[in-house]
Amino acid sequence: MNKIEHIGIAVNSVKDAGAVYEKLLGTSVYKIEEVASEGVKTAFLQTGPNKIELLEATSPESPIAKFIAKRGEGMHHIAFEVTDIKAEMTRLKAEGFILLNDEPKQGADNKLVCFVHPKGTNGVLIELCQSVNR
Amino acid sequence: MNKIEHIGIAVNSVKDAGAVYEKLLGTSVYKIEEVASEGVKTAFLQTGPNKIELLEATSPESPIAKFIAKRGEGMHHIAFEVTDIKAEMTRLKAEGFILLNDEPKQGADNKLVCFVHPKGTNGVLIELCQSVNR
Repeated sequence: MNKIEHIGIAVNSVKDAGAVYEKLLGTSVYKIEEVASEGVKTAFLQTGPNKIELLEATSPESPIAKFIAKRGEGMHHIAFEVTDIKAEMTRLKAEGFILLNDEPKQGADNKLVCFVHPKGTNGVLIELCQSVNR
Repeated sequence: MNKIEHIGIAVNSVKDAGAVYEKLLGTSVYKIEEVASEGVKTAFLQTGPNKIELLEATSPESPIAKFIAKRGEGMHHIAFEVTDIKAEMTRLKAEGFILLNDEPKQGADNKLVCFVHPKGTNGVLIELCQSVNR
């Protein structure tokens, strides 16, 4: 794991939360992107080597909608940057972690991603992400 | 804000969670420290420029004990590194954020810290921290 790539925060509105985090971090949202397969609209802010990803549900079936219905807005996941996602997935599986997808899948912000079940990580949803050169 | 300094994770046992996060991150806990004033025992792991801080309650009145009783183990706060914590506190107050302490206070890992109320930050407890040279 190279660094924390981003922290995902579940919010009701990326527009409203974007304005809050722009003030908090003293920087601007640099990208808004919809990931239809996940049912989310995302907004990204950069702070040094790390990012904040704001996540708004675009459908009631979205995991973000369910998360907010249960717990309210708040921290949703930690994403770690990896160089070789397949190698990390193999390593973590061998260590006994439960992966939520067997193959890397396309995520927001030009990444290949894999999620690790929070049951094995003290209640924290972990994402691995590898940058894709396109 | 310079970067994400660390993510705080509320856990039942820093010993048990430390072993999990050592496997996850492929690195070792480099410090275990008790912060009596906060009622917590902390363990730190480094990943690139960022850290994971595991937090275990040392008393039933600890904010970590209350957090876990309400929500279970999981992500507790995001800490951002700042160069001048007093200047950031003044700036954030002027922006309308609610600070949980009026003066910087001593935190774990040799830091001066200030917390920002999650009510104004979409449910996320934010910590500012400045390194102290001793």
